[in-house]
Amino acid sequence: MLEILRLTHRIARDKRISTHLGLTARAFLADKMYYSGEKDSSLESSIEKINKKFGGQFVIEHVKDPVKLVKEKKVHGYKIIHLTVYGLSIKTELEKIKKLKNVLIVVGSEHVPFDFYNLADINLSITNQPHSELSALAILLYEIQKNKEFFYKDALLSIQPCKLGKKVKKPI
Amino acid sequence: MLEILRLTHRIARDKRISTHLGLTARAFLADKMYYSGEKDSSLESSIEKINKKFGGQFVIEHVKDPVKLVKEKKVHGYKIIHLTVYGLSIKTELEKIKKLKNVLIVVGSEHVPFDFYNLADINLSITNQPHSELSALAILLYEIQKNKEFFYKDALLSIQPCKLGKKVKKPI
Repeated sequence: MLEILRLTHRIARDKRISTHLGLTARAFLADKMYYSGEKDSSLESSIEKINKKFGGQFVIEHVKDPVKLVKEKKVHGYKIIHLTVYGLSIKTELEKIKKLKNVLIVVGSEHVPFDFYNLADINLSITNQPHSELSALAILLYEIQKNKEFFYKDALLSIQPCKLGKKVKKPI
Repeated sequence: MLEILRLTHRIARDKRISTHLGLTARAFLADKMYYSGEKDSSLESSIEKINKKFGGQFVIEHVKDPVKLVKEKKVHGYKIIHLTVYGLSIKTELEKIKKLKNVLIVVGSEHVPFDFYNLADINLSITNQPHSELSALAILLYEIQKNKEFFYKDALLSIQPCKLGKKVKKPI
């Protein structure tokens, strides 16, 4: 299982970044995104709409206590990767990460409580420059899922690579 | 030169995504981000603050006419890469892209005018699933800049890779 935990979602501020986190996780074949902070039915329905059109069973779920979730996942054998600019470099950690079976990737917001640094099996940075939790997640998932095909069998619509224009197929 | 053009910035809706686009471009050693749409001094100052702290000469500049900018860049020998889910796959185009010298990467918002598809030398997709213009930019820059060191010599602060906690140095 490949799962994401998005910390401290705030509807007013994070609506688009959290939606893009969910869509990126789904595009790169993750199974699920949990999020803490404010419960947001509009965030959930944005993701579900994309599932219906483009396929897959990607799940989005609100959690009240993200520390408890991380502890439970560890009990069930998950390895926890916390994305932070202060962590170890993806350059040194990637090969180890690719071998893991059940992974929860924790994606922060501002001021991540130190609990998550302590609970993480790997605190991981994608460059040592401040940029974006979404960029960091996208790059990590891209590396983990490299060489896979990003199709869902039950899609109503499937986008085809195209030099110019838009080519969308309805699979049979 | 490695430059970005962010289309149709809307302050209310895109503030965070556009800021993260600029920070991601800067982190991956791009030279400049242009943006069209609403001029936003708060977006510009967010990027400039990071420059001051973490170094580099990354420039952010508002443009009124993005089509004109793209046409001018082409006259000056730039190749235009337009990121769109409908484009050709990064898997088939990457090696060609890595050899380019002067590049402008165009990053859309909703409903990109067809002009940009026509002006692009490469319409490029990062997976054929809808996800995020920011994820797409991050992955493309990550691939283009692979194996480089992400340090700026004139930084006031430099973040060091670290297993647990936060290690920040002041370079001499």
